[in-house]
Amino acid sequence: MGEHTNPWANLKGKNIPSNVELDHVIYQYARPGCHVLDIGCGTGKVSIPLASQGFLVKGVDINAEALMMATCSSGSQKCPQVPLFVQADATHLPFSDSTFDLVIMQAFLTTVTSKDDRTRIIREACRVLKPQAHLYLADFGQTWHSKIYRERYINDLPVTREEGSILAYDRETGEIAYIAHHFTEKELVFLLVGNGFEIEFFKRDGFVTRNGNLVNGFVVVGGKV
Amino acid sequence: MGEHTNPWANLKGKNIPSNVELDHVIYQYARPGCHVLDIGCGTGKVSIPLASQGFLVKGVDINAEALMMATCSSGSQKCPQVPLFVQADATHLPFSDSTFDLVIMQAFLTTVTSKDDRTRIIREACRVLKPQAHLYLADFGQTWHSKIYRERYINDLPVTREEGSILAYDRETGEIAYIAHHFTEKELVFLLVGNGFEIEFFKRDGFVTRNGNLVNGFVVVGGKV
Repeated sequence: MGEHTNPWANLKGKNIPSNVELDHVIYQYARPGCHVLDIGCGTGKVSIPLASQGFLVKGVDINAEALMMATCSSGSQKCPQVPLFVQADATHLPFSDSTFDLVIMQAFLTTVTSKDDRTRIIREACRVLKPQAHLYLADFGQTWHSKIYRERYINDLPVTREEGSILAYDRETGEIAYIAHHFTEKELVFLLVGNGFEIEFFKRDGFVTRNGNLVNGFVVVGGKV
Repeated sequence: MGEHTNPWANLKGKNIPSNVELDHVIYQYARPGCHVLDIGCGTGKVSIPLASQGFLVKGVDINAEALMMATCSSGSQKCPQVPLFVQADATHLPFSDSTFDLVIMQAFLTTVTSKDDRTRIIREACRVLKPQAHLYLADFGQTWHSKIYRERYINDLPVTREEGSILAYDRETGEIAYIAHHFTEKELVFLLVGNGFEIEFFKRDGFVTRNGNLVNGFVVVGGKV
């Protein structure tokens, strides 16, 4: 998942989608003052509002341009705590064990095409969380009832090589920009319970994609076992 | 699926579970006066209220005792139309092609353990529906986030031989009473779109089982293509 192979490292910052809103359940697991890590923070759409509420936020992303935009945005706001944005690979986080009270992955795992990397990322999140602390995860669900997605899952399979994944195209060039994975409930649950978490909250939700399509979504809170 | 092999044929009528409520979306697809078939009607919990609203209802079930209870219940109520209850196998319905305006399967497919029978049943429903008429289907979804169901899916697999199926026990004798299948969205969608329907409505819902457990559910309306 180095910079050379990861399409997210070199995507234009403004083209990084981030349409999924934080679910309010997060405030049952985190209080202002607590230490939050936002993995795949992009341009800071989650980190900055949380910092403005008094959370101590660190945001990591692989995309340097997005991090620069995030830093600029947060500088222009009057946050009681300015979030710290760091370029990092989610499979190898530059933080000590048991550092954070809450890790957030907001529509981030969808961008990770390797199953092994997904496992590594969840284990890394577990490692940097304090004992009994929480992982908040919101992501896309496979949406078979939609004819549009059903056809994309099937038609894109020869390229994505994973059921439930789709190709996303660059709007300007028309070229493949990245692969997005939509999860099944089973996939997401075993990813967590197999890598250090138990499920404490699980909600089937509906999200809107960057194109305005309605898609199944999950909001999950895992507790570090 | 003859009487000798189908556990539902000889189950005590009062032990037939029916906890799932009709979703109001059904009234967008059916008006009083229209001809409704309730497949797997059990003791009439769906058929009787619909008849009391003026629908022309036929209910079929494999269980004779349940049908007798249904007939008694409907006789004791003042329905403008009395539903007609008929013992039949859903894979071979005793009705002509293009008879009904609406077919209902309310937590019925969950009881059908054979994939081939599920296909036959959906095709039969399609056959007895008028052109462009609708199938309303509500059923249980695989609920992997629940530790209880996750363990049942895994532990019961050697007996059920189908992922997402569970064993249900007789409360008095403790013996296996039947197998219940919980569907994935993909399974349910392809069962319909592969057998004469297109998806016109799809809702991810939550149901309560006979034991009071919360479980994922789907409410689906298919239009006869």
